[in-house]
Amino acid sequence: MAGKGANSSNTKGKKKEVKKETGLGLSYKKDDNFGEWYSEVVVNGEMIEYYDISGCYILRPWAMSIWDIMQVAWVTKSGESDLEVPIAIRPTSETVMYPYFSKWIRGHRDLPLRLNQWCNVVRWEFSNPTPFIRSREFLWQEGHTAFATKEEADTEVLDILELYRHIYEEFLAVPVIKGKKSEHEKFAGGLYTTTVEAFIPNTGRGIQGATSHCLGQNFAKMFEINFENDKGEKAMVWQNSWAYTTRTIGVMIMVHGDDKGLVLPPKIASVQVIVIPVPYKDANTQGIFDACAATVKTLNESGIRAEVDSRDNYSPGWKYSHWEMKGVPLRIEIGPKDFANNQVRAVRRDNSAKIDIPMANLVEQVNDLLNNIQKSLFEVAKQKRDACIQVVNTWEEFAEALSQKKMILAPWCDDEV
Amino acid sequence: MAGKGANSSNTKGKKKEVKKETGLGLSYKKDDNFGEWYSEVVVNGEMIEYYDISGCYILRPWAMSIWDIMQVAWVTKSGESDLEVPIAIRPTSETVMYPYFSKWIRGHRDLPLRLNQWCNVVRWEFSNPTPFIRSREFLWQEGHTAFATKEEADTEVLDILELYRHIYEEFLAVPVIKGKKSEHEKFAGGLYTTTVEAFIPNTGRGIQGATSHCLGQNFAKMFEINFENDKGEKAMVWQNSWAYTTRTIGVMIMVHGDDKGLVLPPKIASVQVIVIPVPYKDANTQGIFDACAATVKTLNESGIRAEVDSRDNYSPGWKYSHWEMKGVPLRIEIGPKDFANNQVRAVRRDNSAKIDIPMANLVEQVNDLLNNIQKSLFEVAKQKRDACIQVVNTWEEFAEALSQKKMILAPWCDDEV
Repeated sequence: MAGKGANSSNTKGKKKEVKKETGLGLSYKKDDNFGEWYSEVVVNGEMIEYYDISGCYILRPWAMSIWDIMQVAWVTKSGESDLEVPIAIRPTSETVMYPYFSKWIRGHRDLPLRLNQWCNVVRWEFSNPTPFIRSREFLWQEGHTAFATKEEADTEVLDILELYRHIYEEFLAVPVIKGKKSEHEKFAGGLYTTTVEAFIPNTGRGIQGATSHCLGQNFAKMFEINFENDKGEKAMVWQNSWAYTTRTIGVMIMVHGDDKGLVLPPKIASVQVIVIPVPYKDANTQGIFDACAATVKTLNESGIRAEVDSRDNYSPGWKYSHWEMKGVPLRIEIGPKDFANNQVRAVRRDNSAKIDIPMANLVEQVNDLLNNIQKSLFEVAKQKRDACIQVVNTWEEFAEALSQKKMILAPWCDDEV
Repeated sequence: MAGKGANSSNTKGKKKEVKKETGLGLSYKKDDNFGEWYSEVVVNGEMIEYYDISGCYILRPWAMSIWDIMQVAWVTKSGESDLEVPIAIRPTSETVMYPYFSKWIRGHRDLPLRLNQWCNVVRWEFSNPTPFIRSREFLWQEGHTAFATKEEADTEVLDILELYRHIYEEFLAVPVIKGKKSEHEKFAGGLYTTTVEAFIPNTGRGIQGATSHCLGQNFAKMFEINFENDKGEKAMVWQNSWAYTTRTIGVMIMVHGDDKGLVLPPKIASVQVIVIPVPYKDANTQGIFDACAATVKTLNESGIRAEVDSRDNYSPGWKYSHWEMKGVPLRIEIGPKDFANNQVRAVRRDNSAKIDIPMANLVEQVNDLLNNIQKSLFEVAKQKRDACIQVVNTWEEFAEALSQKKMILAPWCDDEV
């Protein structure tokens, strides 16, 4: 079918096909039907493809590029040299790793032992799968560490928690709250669990962002992870474990996405600026395309991740929608007027603001805009989140706040009735 | 037990423990019992840990650092920007990916489509597992590409094969032979398979190093991967796939390893130079330790991966054996005499040659040595390999050469009787 037809019908067929292919526009609005909106935006934004096993999703390059950037962010922040990076063969878990801790740890000079791996992991049992948020297989980082003293373990738990906060707030522009899990919700078998928790205003639900556990000596007892301390006495190690997953990406999508699609914070966007030529009839088309290429080159040279969409089989309007759907933070348009005036037009993805930038100021102003977008996304999200916080003192207030999708601050005794 | 005992018995116990812990020395010689030598060297060299499921191994940081460097080498050589990097959820394979090729490829502007992923993969069924060489789960890179024309696919098959040769010969210092597989050995379902083949003199066996397949249009037919070509006609894509695995590491170990343990080529060694202080009685111990630290700093600053082993609970002799076992290409010793003369002593892992280097020439001479070691490892391996090649013309000659563990060049008609 696709190969047939005269030009006119072919064009029509093509448009339809194009719409199907890249999903221009969303059928659902975020505030009307959040669940359907989310399903649509992760597919149309080219983050995932559904696979024919429920709960299994194919992560596409657009999503992987974010995960890759977050790994780099991790290394930058935590210092790669401190962490050994093995890849244990799956299934990975405490019961796989810790017998080897027992083997590898002999004396206090073997401590601290700090292992971290980036890999995939399977959790087969659950209901209600959601791309990135709950899937049967996902990507994560898992750290497992052992120390000579509880003090060192305690310190690391909070250091890692701060690292998680940093990644959520500074990279994903998602505000989180640090805290300690209740006894009921803590990691079973551990001593205590700390967490960063995000909040999705549309669902009125908090969502666990990442956890940093102090395991105490429970696993050390179980797996006989002993060492000779600096006094020559036999002692047991103190252990931590901590992890964050590709759920981070799902939370980011839910918090920032809008009715036009994804909205990516500049720091984790693989394409921060998309440059689109806007030729018009008799105008100097070649000049416009050259100006676009020069713009991308200038931006790339200053370390900004920019690309040009020079495809000649899509209209500028189609391209605007396409890159809005994919969430690119800043769009630069160059049309005949811009070309004549030696300027570009920048359009922010987050608030649609339009700014004309003289070519002479390009790098400086684009850098400023990207920084502003990054900050603004966080501020807006934080304001929305904070507006949902409600302090309650009675059960009636609690139930009422819950029905209004509030984030509730309530007294807590941590005793089970 | 470990915490008890007086100093003397403690020391004795410690030595025994240390031996067990890090595997000083090998029980088997490479030329006497290659299989046992290999099993021992991969464990004592801290490349793997055996896991309690047959055929499953834990890859330790020493092995992962090599795999990481090979990924970087890959990117440098092939150019990352050309390749999209998705991570499809496992199980990955043609049947998982290609239905989506059919969905993602519409017009000729979508071609070529080039996907590459670095991930783990499971192959459960086989006999005779061997670490790195044949394991139930392994790490690999798999590329899957689609082109508009056969010519483009053919070109890429050979480009990738050359990339594999480059990685084996230039990084792992392992000589390989490029060639085409017989119809019997080619990837079933493909059009033709090219391969780089290594040779293990100790076993007299060739070993498949990596394969680059042209799939032709077989999968395109099966999965209906069609596109509209530039003439507006419906056409079918031409596909390739290609992969290499952590087997590369096993081949490298088998080819270069010796009776003292691993021998790592400098280009893929995470530690290229190990610096060991050799204090003696009343000598200026602090001065020696400072000189070691300064040496590492100087080397690191010039891009050489150097580390100091300043542990005070192991003797210099123990450390020599330890780092020989782990295959570090160059050892630098600094003792009282070296310190007094403002020089260091370098010892090559590959041929035990000792070279005194004045501090003033440190970087230049270490760089030269590392380059020489890299070249020499390849040359020695190539000579050994070439010495095993035998041209035969009759079945009797063939059988005789095979019994002598030769690599055989024989006439081949590719017809099955």
